[in-house]
Amino acid sequence: MASTIKDIVITPVAFHDMPLLNSVGVHEPFALRSIIEVVTDTTYGLGESYGDVVHIARLEAAAKTLIGLSVYDTNTIEQRCVTALADDTATGGDGMAGLVTTASASDKVFAAFEVACLDIQGKLAGVPVSQLLGGRVRGSVPFSAYLFYKWGRHPGDDADDIYGAALDPEGLVKQAKQIIDEYGFTAIKLKGGVFPPDQEVAAIKALAKAFPGVPLRIDPNAAWTVETSQKVAKDLEGILEYLEDPTPDIPGMAAVAKTAAMPLATNMAVVAFPHLPPSIAQGAVQVVLSDHHFWGGLRKSQILAGICATWGMQLSMHSNSHLGISLAAMTHLAAATQNINYACDTHWPWKRKDEDVVVDGPLVWKDGGVIVPTTPGLGVELDRARLAKLHQQYLDCGLTKRDDTAYMQKFHPEFSNKLPRW
Amino acid sequence: MASTIKDIVITPVAFHDMPLLNSVGVHEPFALRSIIEVVTDTTYGLGESYGDVVHIARLEAAAKTLIGLSVYDTNTIEQRCVTALADDTATGGDGMAGLVTTASASDKVFAAFEVACLDIQGKLAGVPVSQLLGGRVRGSVPFSAYLFYKWGRHPGDDADDIYGAALDPEGLVKQAKQIIDEYGFTAIKLKGGVFPPDQEVAAIKALAKAFPGVPLRIDPNAAWTVETSQKVAKDLEGILEYLEDPTPDIPGMAAVAKTAAMPLATNMAVVAFPHLPPSIAQGAVQVVLSDHHFWGGLRKSQILAGICATWGMQLSMHSNSHLGISLAAMTHLAAATQNINYACDTHWPWKRKDEDVVVDGPLVWKDGGVIVPTTPGLGVELDRARLAKLHQQYLDCGLTKRDDTAYMQKFHPEFSNKLPRW
Repeated sequence: MASTIKDIVITPVAFHDMPLLNSVGVHEPFALRSIIEVVTDTTYGLGESYGDVVHIARLEAAAKTLIGLSVYDTNTIEQRCVTALADDTATGGDGMAGLVTTASASDKVFAAFEVACLDIQGKLAGVPVSQLLGGRVRGSVPFSAYLFYKWGRHPGDDADDIYGAALDPEGLVKQAKQIIDEYGFTAIKLKGGVFPPDQEVAAIKALAKAFPGVPLRIDPNAAWTVETSQKVAKDLEGILEYLEDPTPDIPGMAAVAKTAAMPLATNMAVVAFPHLPPSIAQGAVQVVLSDHHFWGGLRKSQILAGICATWGMQLSMHSNSHLGISLAAMTHLAAATQNINYACDTHWPWKRKDEDVVVDGPLVWKDGGVIVPTTPGLGVELDRARLAKLHQQYLDCGLTKRDDTAYMQKFHPEFSNKLPRW
Repeated sequence: MASTIKDIVITPVAFHDMPLLNSVGVHEPFALRSIIEVVTDTTYGLGESYGDVVHIARLEAAAKTLIGLSVYDTNTIEQRCVTALADDTATGGDGMAGLVTTASASDKVFAAFEVACLDIQGKLAGVPVSQLLGGRVRGSVPFSAYLFYKWGRHPGDDADDIYGAALDPEGLVKQAKQIIDEYGFTAIKLKGGVFPPDQEVAAIKALAKAFPGVPLRIDPNAAWTVETSQKVAKDLEGILEYLEDPTPDIPGMAAVAKTAAMPLATNMAVVAFPHLPPSIAQGAVQVVLSDHHFWGGLRKSQILAGICATWGMQLSMHSNSHLGISLAAMTHLAAATQNINYACDTHWPWKRKDEDVVVDGPLVWKDGGVIVPTTPGLGVELDRARLAKLHQQYLDCGLTKRDDTAYMQKFHPEFSNKLPRW
């Protein structure tokens, strides 16, 4: 059968990353990902996920149990992933530097295979993944300019990277101009939680002045107390389109939501289905930043979208450092999801242009968005030479998990990742 | 393109029905349905829906706007249905004798087309609809023995129908034996709301005695007040697996749920997505009787299933009088839905065996369930001679809408459909 899974190949890869700052540390010189190939008699499908060694071991354990299944039988594939991880006692493996720790391990494992299976389903049916998900409601998916405080270079490098340092409002405005000049983004997100809140409020105000009318967001990754969050919300009233994860946990977000004028968004407090009932009961969150990598794939993300539609919540999309397979999957999902009404997040501009595992071409940026591919499946094909190169880079770089905190402490031993900080 | 909609044909049909009693009257001699054929260059897909003239006019109005779309673009198809009905001011057309009046008209219209589009998607991909929905989690879908109080024959008929009268506990036990002997059902549902509650409680107790260990349900279609419902729940504690729609509306169900020992089920209080938030907030319902005909099709029913899973509610399935296309669609959906854990309802035994619009064969009953078809699409094919016969029957019977109340009043002019009655 053309749809029977014959083999699954999981390849860890590493690609260069820039020293982007966040509330728990700084990005290391390489970002890790896993590339998943699901192989049938006639074709193959692609998935992309986290590259931490614990996560890869989970992927491998589950993959073994999927051989012989149909790529259509995703219910059984999901159940097999749950079963394969039933005795899993490993810690870590979240791939998100400890920032998203309560997502479901089996959803994260299943998601990678589900995307690959949908890629194959699309190829076999001759339709793009967006059509398997109900078809495009937009021809291009808008993404946001994702600004970071950053060092100019990784310690030890000879020269600054192409963006250079951004450690104050002026640096961020310059970064925003550079990134928007190139991609045309029409919304701006600042990764905060790095400097004291007053400095970050000043940065947002500087961005508002430099980019009048452009929707703005700040995401301190739960670095603030409820009180600080309420104060920042007051300071930025009328300026932010939403305030993302100012403070940890559902009760904290609910307390902030009570006084904040703008919607609260999250990809930390609500990251799995069991978090939705308490969040909704408490009115904690108005915008869920969905992420198919940890919500259990594209179809489960559509269930999340249905829940958000039913309870009057909005949707946007979270991102980690990623390659082209993930960008394709995010684009198809957002294209087919009516109520993703905010520009989605992506780390795309922080990746070197010549580093990927897919053949260049299908993912076209225009006016701050990605044009939805209309070729069968995800619309991207593996470039095996590139894959081999990034896999060798993985072997050479010596990293086996993402640890922004340890990397920061290498240079600033006094750094603590304890949140909230202010 | 093989997936482009070239034509849509909507054919009203009528098939013989028996004088089944419910809280708003009695089934007329014919049940009405609409048969939907969505036609592409290379194949066709089938849907089945209500047959009321107002509903058929809505289907026709929407169908006109769907020509040229891809059967994969169900998001756009749904939006076109909403738009086509935006100015609809017709009343009625629910097809459910006034028992389910708050379902969404556009969801009911869209559902018929969505099922037909999935039938085509399955045929084009060479996979059964259950696999488009994530694949079977059960090979056979259990249904319940759906008992009715009934007259022995329609007034004016020469002889009793094959089931004869059932107007007391003994009659219902006899009916249950007859129906279970033939189909092997392993759960029993009684349509109540016909006689004073004490008599129906006695009937359930007689069934419990005659069928020890068989799960039992009663559905009075909101014929009872909150107080009566609470009393019946107390009387049937330890006997019912669930109590279905004892009283009208979400607040009423919530009041009953507060004291009832068994779960409450509904296909009247919660029949569309906007009903879920208040129902969940009030704890009104523990089992949602889903029905793809009014929840907006198979994929939206899966979103409902995801919501039920997230909030710890259970799922079963509601039925109206229906033909083989609907049975096939219900079977594929239930087969692919993990949390449909109760035997589903079906009116199948009340239909004459020689009356349908599909070719006999693919839908095989065994041990109280339907074996899930594994051929492409829904797995059923149109029998055009049978379709023509049931369409002629529609033209000849003179009925244009379901009206159980008017039919009852023909013989019992004093009958009122006002609920709750007791």
